[in-house]
Formats: sequence, C-alpha cells, structure tokens
Amino acid sequence: MADNNDHLVQSQDPDHPANLIPDLCKRFFHNGWCTGTGGGTSIKKDNHIFIAPSGVQKEMMKSENIFVVEFPTPKYPPSERKYIRKPLDLKPSACTPLFLAAFERGAGCCIHSHSQWCVLVTLLVEKMHGKDACFKISNIEQIKGIPKGPGKGMLGFHDTLRVPIIENTPFEEDLTGALEEAMEKYPDTYAVLVRRHGIYVWGDTVAKAKTQCESLDYLFQLAVEMHKLGLPWLKE
Amino acid sequence: MADNNDHLVQSQDPDHPANLIPDLCKRFFHNGWCTGTGGGTSIKKDNHIFIAPSGVQKEMMKSENIFVVEFPTPKYPPSERKYIRKPLDLKPSACTPLFLAAFERGAGCCIHSHSQWCVLVTLLVEKMHGKDACFKISNIEQIKGIPKGPGKGMLGFHDTLRVPIIENTPFEEDLTGALEEAMEKYPDTYAVLVRRHGIYVWGDTVAKAKTQCESLDYLFQLAVEMHKLGLPWLKE
Amino acid sequence: MADNNDHLVQSQDPDHPANLIPDLCKRFFHNGWCTGTGGGTSIKKDNHIFIAPSGVQKEMMKSENIFVVEFPTPKYPPSERKYIRKPLDLKPSACTPLFLAAFERGAGCCIHSHSQWCVLVTLLVEKMHGKDACFKISNIEQIKGIPKGPGKGMLGFHDTLRVPIIENTPFEEDLTGALEEAMEKYPDTYAVLVRRHGIYVWGDTVAKAKTQCESLDYLFQLAVEMHKLGLPWLKE
Amino acid sequence: MADNNDHLVQSQDPDHPANLIPDLCKRFFHNGWCTGTGGGTSIKKDNHIFIAPSGVQKEMMKSENIFVVEFPTPKYPPSERKYIRKPLDLKPSACTPLFLAAFERGAGCCIHSHSQWCVLVTLLVEKMHGKDACFKISNIEQIKGIPKGPGKGMLGFHDTLRVPIIENTPFEEDLTGALEEAMEKYPDTYAVLVRRHGIYVWGDTVAKAKTQCESLDYLFQLAVEMHKLGLPWLKE
Repeated sequence: MADNNDHLVQSQDPDHPANLIPDLCKRFFHNGWCTGTGGGTSIKKDNHIFIAPSGVQKEMMKSENIFVVEFPTPKYPPSERKYIRKPLDLKPSACTPLFLAAFERGAGCCIHSHSQWCVLVTLLVEKMHGKDACFKISNIEQIKGIPKGPGKGMLGFHDTLRVPIIENTPFEEDLTGALEEAMEKYPDTYAVLVRRHGIYVWGDTVAKAKTQCESLDYLFQLAVEMHKLGLPWLKE
Repeated sequence: MADNNDHLVQSQDPDHPANLIPDLCKRFFHNGWCTGTGGGTSIKKDNHIFIAPSGVQKEMMKSENIFVVEFPTPKYPPSERKYIRKPLDLKPSACTPLFLAAFERGAGCCIHSHSQWCVLVTLLVEKMHGKDACFKISNIEQIKGIPKGPGKGMLGFHDTLRVPIIENTPFEEDLTGALEEAMEKYPDTYAVLVRRHGIYVWGDTVAKAKTQCESLDYLFQLAVEMHKLGLPWLKE
Repeated sequence: MADNNDHLVQSQDPDHPANLIPDLCKRFFHNGWCTGTGGGTSIKKDNHIFIAPSGVQKEMMKSENIFVVEFPTPKYPPSERKYIRKPLDLKPSACTPLFLAAFERGAGCCIHSHSQWCVLVTLLVEKMHGKDACFKISNIEQIKGIPKGPGKGMLGFHDTLRVPIIENTPFEEDLTGALEEAMEKYPDTYAVLVRRHGIYVWGDTVAKAKTQCESLDYLFQLAVEMHKLGLPWLKE
Repeated sequence: MADNNDHLVQSQDPDHPANLIPDLCKRFFHNGWCTGTGGGTSIKKDNHIFIAPSGVQKEMMKSENIFVVEFPTPKYPPSERKYIRKPLDLKPSACTPLFLAAFERGAGCCIHSHSQWCVLVTLLVEKMHGKDACFKISNIEQIKGIPKGPGKGMLGFHDTLRVPIIENTPFEEDLTGALEEAMEKYPDTYAVLVRRHGIYVWGDTVAKAKTQCESLDYLFQLAVEMHKLGLPWLKE
C-alpha cells in the first residue's frame, strides 16, 4: 500500500465506479437524499468494493476520496477489512458493513439515503400498525419499478410491495445485525427502511440500484401525500 | 435492416426527434414525471414514429437508444409493427400502442408521465365522485393553456376542463382499448389520466404536447393543494 | 420597418433587455412562474419597451422572439401601439397593456407570474375575508424586501404588507381597467394579485422587480403553509 | 485604502473566501435560503472577515462585491469597524455584527438563512410551548450532523437537539444583543433561530457551517411535516 493504489480510482471511463460514485452522489444530493454529509453509495466491480467516505459533502466528492476494499472481506472488526485504498485524511463510511451485507447477497451497488419521505413513512407505519409492521403499498403503477425478488422479475400492479423496517441504533455499524435479519426474513426485498433514519437500497447493477431507489422514494412521497389526503395505501 | 438504420437517429439538428426525445426526457425527469425509468415520449415526423425505449434511465437517454416505427403500422401484435430501427440491447416501450392511438388521431407528439399529481387527482376524484367521474376544474387562468378540442382554439377561463380517467391494467399495452374508448367518448380531449398510474398527453406538435402537459400538471398540483385547503375545484 | 429593426434585440451586453428577458424567463420557469407558456416579462430601456411574446416556451425564448414598442404608446387598441419590432411568426403578449400601465407609473420592469402560491392566496383571502379584501401579512422578516411606496424606502418588520386582488377576466387585456383602479386605490403598491390567475409585480429596475417578485412569492408560499398549520397571517 | 484593496478578493483558488462566498450564495439561493436578496454569508480567513454585501441578488454575486474587515474589530458602531475593502456602490450587510459575534466565539464561517422551514418552526414552537421555549427534536438520524458543543463531538441519535429562538427586531443589527445572550445561555449551540425571520448557523470551517445548516434545515422541514402528520418531535 506504499502508493495507496491511487490508480484504482483513476479512470477516463465515466462508467468506472470511481467516476460513477461522485456523479451519483451529486444527483442524490439534489434529490435531498444526502444533504449535510448524510447518506452514501457503494459499488462492486469484480473483487473490489468502492465506497464513498464518511463526512464529506456528497455533492462535491472527488474520485480521489474513495475507499477501496478487496472482496470478500470480514465485515467486523473494521481493522480486519482488506482495505486496498484508504485516503489518509478521511474516515471510512460507517455504512461499510451494511453495504458489505448487500454485496454478500449478490448486489452490484448499494445506496443509503436519508430522504425525508423514508423517515416519515417509518413513523406513519409505526403510528398506524406498530413497530413490527413493514411498509405496504399496492395498486400503484410505480410498484412495477421494484423487483419481486432475485430472479423473479418485477412486481405487478396488483402485487403488494413490502419493505421491512428496522429500528435505528446509535452507531450505524450496529444496524448490521438487524439489517441481515430483515434480509433473511424478507429474502425477496431489495431495500430495508431504518426507522427515523432512512433506507438501504441495493440492486444487481448501478442502474438498477439507482432506479429502484428512485421508485421507492416516489412511492414513499406518494404514500405521505396520500396519508395527508385520507387515501389508504392498500386498495380496500 | 442490415445496418439497423442508425442514420435515422443521427442528426445535427437539435429539433430532430432523435435529439428532442433525450432532451425532453431529461427535462421531464427533473419535473418528477419519469423517475425510476417510468414514463416515456414519442414524436412523429413524416411517416416515422420515434419512441423512447423501455426501462432506461430517462435523464441519461441517448439518441442511439431510440426505436423508429414506420407509420401507419398495426398497433397489435407487436410482432407486426413495422420497426425500421430497433436497438438490439433494448426493449420497445410498452406504451407503443398508446402512443400510436394518439398518432392515429393526428398527434405530432405524445408524452406519458408518472407525475404524482396525476396519481393523487385520480384517487381524489374516485373518492369524491366515484369511478365514472372525470377530473373537472374551472375558473383557473392556466386552463387557457389547454385546447378546447381539435380546431376549436383554447379553453376559456370560465370553461370547465374535463380530463377522462381510465382504470389501470396490469400490462400497460392493455390500456389501449380503454384509452381509445376515452378518446371516442371525449373527442375534444388531448389527455387521458390513468388511475393510480399517470397520464397520456398529446398535441399537434412537440411544443404543444409539452406545454399542454405542463399546464395539466400545474392544474393537478393546484387541485391537490386546493383540496388540502378545502377549496373546491369548480366555482360554486 | 423594412428590416424589422433586428438590431434592437442584438447586443453582446448581458444586461441588455433583449438578453435579460430570455435569461429571466428561464429562471422564472424553474420557479414555476411561467410553465406551459404562462406568465411574461417586460423591460423599459430609454423610450423602448421590450416584451416577451405570447405563447412561447418561456425557458427556451430567444432574443429574436422579443417585441419592441416605442414608449409612450397608446394602450388601446393594439393596432395603434407603436411597435417598432414585431417577430412575424409570433403574437404580441396579451399582457402588453398591463405592462404599459406599470411603465406609465414609472416602472423599469414588470413581471407577470402564474405561481400557484398566488392563486392559492387569492382563494384563501376570498374564503376568509370576501372578495373585497386584499392580502395582508405582517411581522415576517421577508416583508422588508418590499418597498413601502415610491420614494418611501422599504417596509419595516412590524408594517403590514397589503397586496390588492382583482378579479380575473376571460381576456387578459380586459384586466387593464381593474389593474389601473387597484394602482390608484393602492398608490404605494408594487404588485397586484389576480384571483385564480397570478400576479403582476413591477419595480424601478430589473433587479428590484425580480427581487420583489421573489420576496412576494416567498411570502405567499409561507402564508399558504401557515394557513395549513393554523397560524394567522397577522400577529394577534 | 487608495486602491480599495481589490487584491484581497482576487484569487485563482476556488477555496479562497472571495470565490467561496459567491459559490455558496448561489447554492443557498437554490435551497430557498436567500431569495429576494435575503440571507447572507461570511467567512474568516486569518485576520480577515469576508462578508457578502447587503441587498444584492445572492445567486449573481461576484467576488468584487465582497466587503473585507480586519479582525478583531468593534461590532459597534459601524463607523468604527476596520473595513479594509468596501465596494463603493454597495452597503455593508446588516448582519455584520451578528457574524462578528460568531467569529468572536471561534467560528470560521457564519451563514444566515431565511429558509421558510425556520420561520415555520419558530411559529410552531411559540404556538405549542410559548415564547421562552427552544426548538427540540430527538431520535432522528440527521441530528448526528450537529455538534454536541465545541470540542465535544457530534450529537448522538438519542440526544435532544436544542436550538434557541430569539425574537426578531425591526433592525437586524439590533438582534446582536439577544443573539449573544442566546450564545451565553446555550454555550453548546452552533445556531440561533430568529422568530419570523430565519436562522444564524456557524461552524469551525466553511464545510462545517454549510453541512450543519443543511442538517438543521432538513430537521426543520421534517419537523413541519411531522407536525402536519400529528407526529411528535420528541420521542414519547
């Protein structure tokens, strides 16, 4: 690691993860998903995981700010993770083990958003149905933008989208256990909401993770507005 | 189709459909009309129909992604449609027969939006007036941005804008029959709402389709906010 | 008018009205003030009035689309107005006599916006206080962005901002009488709301008209949100 | 001051305060924090304070519009302040003594925003808890974007964020006493809300002031939406 492997984040290819992550983070910032250094994004390419750092202004990130981990790697403890590039002036993302949990299940990209619509739906679900309930919505066209489960095609218009919700913890790393439990309990899900916090969304590819995150955010926003207007989320 | 007619989507003219469609889709993405690969746009030029593909990120579309069909062409089955350009790695839009229905009635451009305001007004209309009701609003200046009907000039301030609403179906193609019925029943309309889904808006030209879609979206958003504030959509 | 005076709208100076109007209209489009070809803008420079045309996509306007009238000029009938530049393919704005009314009172720039916040406050004022009431708000810092009246400095924090409201008419030109009456009745105002339509805002300079329009739009949006939250517009 | 020290605001370095302030103000304008010439920003570099001027269109500011004061400097009266650069055609910001109060407490950057979310939370707090109450929220992940206090690290998820609220005054300068009292009473705060007006947010660096302002604005917006949905700000 003498030269800190700078070549790993230097590429002319706009589709290289080191270029895609800053581009995506800028877009997500303008969606309100990662203001105030919140949120994050990670991409897997071959046996390398590229991760946006902690605490940076996401809309101003640069390729040189990106961490690279060799995959597979231990989720815990951080000191055992096989970092092959670590920008010296930055801290690795506290989301790292959560991103790794998605990659262990075959994801190609994982997005963490602090969208307010996520926070609001987790609170509305708790208020209406209690802590154990997941978010459910059906009979909205945009549901068709979410997969039914790995290898099962996309949800249909009449299907019910279910997104599990886990409780937040003081330290983001400590969400990993609950996230993995939710992944086991809902093996078809590509997203887990975190109450009072945001969401983790992953996908087979960067495009799928991004468009699934957009479709989910659309549905959460719609759900909040439907609630304000007295319109139920499930067709009666 | 040996060379797949790439020349049909290559032009230096910014007003060529192959350049306009990506430009419009980027604008519509930022309006919230086609996030998560939803929505679509199609333009007729002479006897060619240019159509945005299915499933792509609309704000990142390229001219080379565009399908071209010779017009007229059968709406069904897809295999009989006279595609003269088919990007090999992409799927044709499921909106194709709906766009064709508009072109058969003389449209020059047809836009499909997933705007949340559309979804919300279709739900509010159903809740207040039942499934058979159309959306109605009057005495709002922006109504004057919508035509009274083909060759009839624009609606006046005191006129009532009526937009028919059809029920959604699991497969987008299956909307075609209901869309055409609505077009027959409301021969003056330039738009049909789809409950829990979005809207199809068309116009004689690209500019008219786009500005009519903007005026309708303005009116739907205003109607939702009026409803929240207890303000009726029709002047009492 | 042999060459239609194209030189009047050709300038390298970014602050020339022929360059400012397209630039402002693009900004106003993204504010939601002139989507669907609604709204408009006019600037006075010496004895020339520059006016955005009717019916164009405001965010795509070009300098060559601009009409020029010699000032002073009769407000009515349009055929008597001293147009010194008329793009042949475009219609003059129906707002022209309303803009002229502002210029006759010393304005340097007049903006017409269709902002939904304007429409909603005109409806809320009517519902709460009847047709004769004007919009009133006090004790909000942003009020200080609005002048007290010509030559009187800016409103103070404890002052009450009053914006008169006139009723809409089927033809925009026909608003002129009511607009001028409101200008007489409220000689200190720099803005007149039009119920169910939008607003006319003017200022001594382009910057003042624009920033006053921004401050008013801020206050109308805030007022709508305050109303939703049960917060009164005037300090009790 | 013969040449008015123009060199102080001329730099090729994008991170120089004279380049950062216009860049930040443009971003803040698009956040809705400083429309209509409202709001402002100030940066300390060594013994120089750079301040955006009063009354300019914040999204169009230029480096040459910036005032420079030598620090330390008397807060009052303005005539005693050690201005080392004063653009002749502009007025110094009325926020100057408030910015100076933050710099005297070690800040590196201070932001003043007119965000409507700030105005609305100050009104909601007063309505619910009276004039003496501060804004309080807990158990929201984004709270972790706000420091616990100088040298104390960041707030935790279960901590309660407290932001003091002071009453507005007709002249912005007159807020200084109340601002400083709030700073004494809440020595850990990095922000003070001003009722019916906006907020002052500061930070050790430009990045910290900006991201703290973003996190606070996120929390205020979320709080307003939670209130609309009947969700309490403090976990019960």
